[in-house]
Amino acid sequence: VRQETINRLMVRAARRGKRVVRLKGGDPFVFGRGGEEALELAMAGIPCEIVPGVSAAIAAPALAGIPVTHRGVTPGFLVLSGHNMDAFDRGIQAVQPNAVSLVVMMGLAERASVADSLVARGWSERTPAAVVCAASTSEQWTWSGSLAELPSVDTPGGLPGVLVVGEVVRVGEVLAAQERSRSHNEVSYGRNG
Amino acid sequence: VRQETINRLMVRAARRGKRVVRLKGGDPFVFGRGGEEALELAMAGIPCEIVPGVSAAIAAPALAGIPVTHRGVTPGFLVLSGHNMDAFDRGIQAVQPNAVSLVVMMGLAERASVADSLVARGWSERTPAAVVCAASTSEQWTWSGSLAELPSVDTPGGLPGVLVVGEVVRVGEVLAAQERSRSHNEVSYGRNG
Repeated sequence: VRQETINRLMVRAARRGKRVVRLKGGDPFVFGRGGEEALELAMAGIPCEIVPGVSAAIAAPALAGIPVTHRGVTPGFLVLSGHNMDAFDRGIQAVQPNAVSLVVMMGLAERASVADSLVARGWSERTPAAVVCAASTSEQWTWSGSLAELPSVDTPGGLPGVLVVGEVVRVGEVLAAQERSRSHNEVSYGRNG
Repeated sequence: VRQETINRLMVRAARRGKRVVRLKGGDPFVFGRGGEEALELAMAGIPCEIVPGVSAAIAAPALAGIPVTHRGVTPGFLVLSGHNMDAFDRGIQAVQPNAVSLVVMMGLAERASVADSLVARGWSERTPAAVVCAASTSEQWTWSGSLAELPSVDTPGGLPGVLVVGEVVRVGEVLAAQERSRSHNEVSYGRNG
């Protein structure tokens, strides 16, 4: 459904006295066009309430053990979308290579272009990178490696995913390794006891 | 309480068989030291679950009507902390002026330094800027204006706040103006009818 159609449906239903809910995955103001919809309603004189959500920009990395910020590792994080590669390139051109954590939403299909664009802009090919698919679901799938390896990662089909690039990915790797080691020990204990 | 003490308390209580909850405002992985605590627990072999939250980085602007992303206005958003101005400066030096939306958490007390640092790095003094204090509470307080005006904003004392810098602030201003106009019309209707 085109955005213009959604806007028209919202306004029409509200004018008919309906309470309209635009229920979105994640946060409506993080690449969710919530701002456009709120403006459309404002122009039509229709009041609306914005309810913030848990954004995959932060939550998907977190559920893979990756903190978008980590003291001494990064001063902050930049969130871009991979949906429109022109906008992505503008965002990447605005930031110095390897200077902040980078989260790319809707960038799974374009992971090769994302990696190429970063390396072309001077990001080290050895920069840690991660893919987190279907975070919080039973199908959650995580890969981590380097920017050089990102283009050839074979991700599960049909799942939404977030890319994370930066040293913070290593925190997730340490946590995952400890978790595996702990689970392994528990299994061993179980066998012996 | 120092972070080291918190870490020690967590590990000690967990080893005594307690279930330990570190309940934080916002998201534990956005300047919340959640990564450090998770690593500490991992080193001690103690399993932990990370529960993502609604981060003020996104939600505080949203509750003031400001979308951190807006199609055609910004390719994305950068989140920095104003708690440590050295880290803030490193983050700002890494990004081209006026290229993305900027959210500064824990930057209220340092708003003058934040504004000076941005202008010194080439951000236009006319860049829209906003302060959102105590978002989501009955004390929520919002100001918006320009980067030039930010240092002299008189904010309510004792409330936490988030700074937002970038053209997206104007979306919040349009929404707020429409809301005021609508409320005014409703009052007029009330008087006449």
